[in-house]
Amino acid sequence: MFKNLQEECYEANMMLPKLNLVVFTFGNASVVDRSQGLFAIKPSGVPYEVLHPSDIVICDFEGRVVMGDKRPSSDTKTHAVLFQNWTDVGGIVHTHSTYATAWAQAQRDIPILGTTHADYLTVDIPCAPPMDDAMIQGDYERETGFQILNEFERRNLSPSEVEMVLLGNHAPFTWGKTAEKAVYNAGLLEAIAQMAYLSCTLRPDVPRLKQTLIDKHYFRKHGKDAYYGQGC
Amino acid sequence: MFKNLQEECYEANMMLPKLNLVVFTFGNASVVDRSQGLFAIKPSGVPYEVLHPSDIVICDFEGRVVMGDKRPSSDTKTHAVLFQNWTDVGGIVHTHSTYATAWAQAQRDIPILGTTHADYLTVDIPCAPPMDDAMIQGDYERETGFQILNEFERRNLSPSEVEMVLLGNHAPFTWGKTAEKAVYNAGLLEAIAQMAYLSCTLRPDVPRLKQTLIDKHYFRKHGKDAYYGQGC
Amino acid sequence: MFKNLQEECYEANMMLPKLNLVVFTFGNASVVDRSQGLFAIKPSGVPYEVLHPSDIVICDFEGRVVMGDKRPSSDTKTHAVLFQNWTDVGGIVHTHSTYATAWAQAQRDIPILGTTHADYLTVDIPCAPPMDDAMIQGDYERETGFQILNEFERRNLSPSEVEMVLLGNHAPFTWGKTAEKAVYNAGLLEAIAQMAYLSCTLRPDVPRLKQTLIDKHYFRKHGKDAYYGQGC
Amino acid sequence: MFKNLQEECYEANMMLPKLNLVVFTFGNASVVDRSQGLFAIKPSGVPYEVLHPSDIVICDFEGRVVMGDKRPSSDTKTHAVLFQNWTDVGGIVHTHSTYATAWAQAQRDIPILGTTHADYLTVDIPCAPPMDDAMIQGDYERETGFQILNEFERRNLSPSEVEMVLLGNHAPFTWGKTAEKAVYNAGLLEAIAQMAYLSCTLRPDVPRLKQTLIDKHYFRKHGKDAYYGQGC
Repeated sequence: MFKNLQEECYEANMMLPKLNLVVFTFGNASVVDRSQGLFAIKPSGVPYEVLHPSDIVICDFEGRVVMGDKRPSSDTKTHAVLFQNWTDVGGIVHTHSTYATAWAQAQRDIPILGTTHADYLTVDIPCAPPMDDAMIQGDYERETGFQILNEFERRNLSPSEVEMVLLGNHAPFTWGKTAEKAVYNAGLLEAIAQMAYLSCTLRPDVPRLKQTLIDKHYFRKHGKDAYYGQGC
Repeated sequence: MFKNLQEECYEANMMLPKLNLVVFTFGNASVVDRSQGLFAIKPSGVPYEVLHPSDIVICDFEGRVVMGDKRPSSDTKTHAVLFQNWTDVGGIVHTHSTYATAWAQAQRDIPILGTTHADYLTVDIPCAPPMDDAMIQGDYERETGFQILNEFERRNLSPSEVEMVLLGNHAPFTWGKTAEKAVYNAGLLEAIAQMAYLSCTLRPDVPRLKQTLIDKHYFRKHGKDAYYGQGC
Repeated sequence: MFKNLQEECYEANMMLPKLNLVVFTFGNASVVDRSQGLFAIKPSGVPYEVLHPSDIVICDFEGRVVMGDKRPSSDTKTHAVLFQNWTDVGGIVHTHSTYATAWAQAQRDIPILGTTHADYLTVDIPCAPPMDDAMIQGDYERETGFQILNEFERRNLSPSEVEMVLLGNHAPFTWGKTAEKAVYNAGLLEAIAQMAYLSCTLRPDVPRLKQTLIDKHYFRKHGKDAYYGQGC
Repeated sequence: MFKNLQEECYEANMMLPKLNLVVFTFGNASVVDRSQGLFAIKPSGVPYEVLHPSDIVICDFEGRVVMGDKRPSSDTKTHAVLFQNWTDVGGIVHTHSTYATAWAQAQRDIPILGTTHADYLTVDIPCAPPMDDAMIQGDYERETGFQILNEFERRNLSPSEVEMVLLGNHAPFTWGKTAEKAVYNAGLLEAIAQMAYLSCTLRPDVPRLKQTLIDKHYFRKHGKDAYYGQGC
């Protein structure tokens, strides 16, 4: 019944260790089916080596299990909140990838320092502050979703333009129109995070990229005048 | 006679190079058989590429060889002391993994900076100070075991809650209910050590994780209210 | 018709992920055919895993497509300007390799610190400053080529002696008599960039290599008295 | 005639890329035959992927070619001087491995910070200063050998106890009773160099290992009371 959705979710999850973005079970990917108001997500704590498409769990936007023998990822409610509120998002990825997590632990935005970054987004990669104690001690994973939503609202960011966030003290979440794009963004974020780490430790007063370069690189890949790629 | 124990010990040892935790012969794993008061351990100085299950040595809790043609790991008495005194431990791993060893050489605890760390333990990863000269010049490997025991007592830590330690100037030891868990903890420690290194060099005044986040992440994976994983 | 040129270009491009110089589609290689005044280049945004020799696009020195179903790399005009003005160049490579890009983001030349560097060039690896706004907002990729040409003229560098450059805030370009050599230089640059990063963070006041060592190492590999390699 | 010597030399050379100690042609290994006063060495500039045992060149202790179609490594005279003067050395390896070279470029000894280091040597890994101009402009590769010999004499080091050196601004040389041991030492040096880099950048005032620990670890692996390994 949900075989295609499970298969697509499985493929996205299996890309994470392949791209060196997760060790052990430190990550999960999900895919939404908007027509049914459901999403598929990795089961909790199942190693990638033994993961099978039929293990993938189907949930609704409250994070309740609709189908599946296994318990879904402990981060399921965060995915649910993002899918429910950001209606253009088709897939979500959470990892503890090394460099992105190091920035999250340092509670610092990743500054835009080069065109690799500007090819994908025009702003620093936002790091949401750690949640306040009431949120942590409440419905934690659900509140994690709201922490992301609130930070985007506070900074006036659009989730279709900025497809990634760091959670302070925690790790990154990325998303995209498809699960495949969310996985791509997780790999992209890690690459940007590593290069920014190196530039910042090499030259602590490294300046941000100037606005003309940011605009040039972003708009050659995005919007109506884009000319990067095969245009499909 | 000890074929299963040797096999299990062999499998644990072979995971160490696979997880990039050892080069050459810089590591060893052991497995205990509580019913017999014996443990299996890697032979000393035998490269992983030529290691065979039948090479695994069986020792008692004094570190004496009970069965095996080969000399056991030079660290055997450290394993013996830990098995004898910490009766819940089923397996022990010693490596010189890169980032964990760098912290040990710097004689610094690994501060708890993120939820990756808090998912597994609620305190900084302890670095025991280098031993005093009398211990070093005495029964060194046995004293190494006592240095770990003493440090846990001094800090009031439980070895079933904190399954890893750095030995100042030396390298890490990890353990667990099984050898497989001890190996897992060795890989986990290396991942935490790398991310903490990056966060600390990026932001030298990086703050420790706040207590509410520590508790939240630890207790969602441990204790009676845990909800991570498949509950088995 | 252009089958050999496409094949050679394809082989050069496929070396980039193999040498860990690109992730996703962050790079491109080109090969010139001087007799026809044309060059072959990777199509824009096509992942290496699905790239096929017949996808390679043939362009003239204005960057116009002469043959091919696909849109050429967005960096095509930069390649075109370099091929047109530097008549000894046979192949060009552009990557966003990690350490080289980190130096470019820091807007710093890579100082000559050791004989690995001096084996290939006698000067610091130049980092061209970010372009001025008029160039960025004009014919950007073409101006990128001129920014490189101008920097080499300003510093009085010869492109047959210095076969690499960093573009400030962007990433490296390398070239050579053949596409294979341009790929080699891209790998060489990344290795030099990593070692220089490590030396500079270990010892921020690290001195440049002295001139006698620079000359010795360069001229044992280059010029009429060279004695490195098989002399063919 | 020299088939076994060539084969042994070939095997040692092929280990270098396998252990990630060289890229391209940045390294070479040699093996001596003391009975004949000859040694086998890699040909200059031949990539490892196409190297064949029959390509290995046989030289005498003046560095003259005795057998072989190819030109020997440009570093041949350095090997020759070391073989001639250090009569216990059976094999020599030269690499530009990343971390060891970074220390050489920084012109710093690698301080002894941990037991990984003390398991193999009791002193800091020496970094010989860059040569004076007369030596560089003279018989450079031969003088490189003397620079190493002189530094060992000045520091009163024995080449059978300290089997590695950094050449300031250049890169490491390692050696051993066999070529296999020289390769091992090249890998060991790189591991020690990386961990020391990490410890020093994490804690710039990191103290050297205390003498009792140095002695304990060195003498459990070396000398008449050694008890590490299988004793053969």
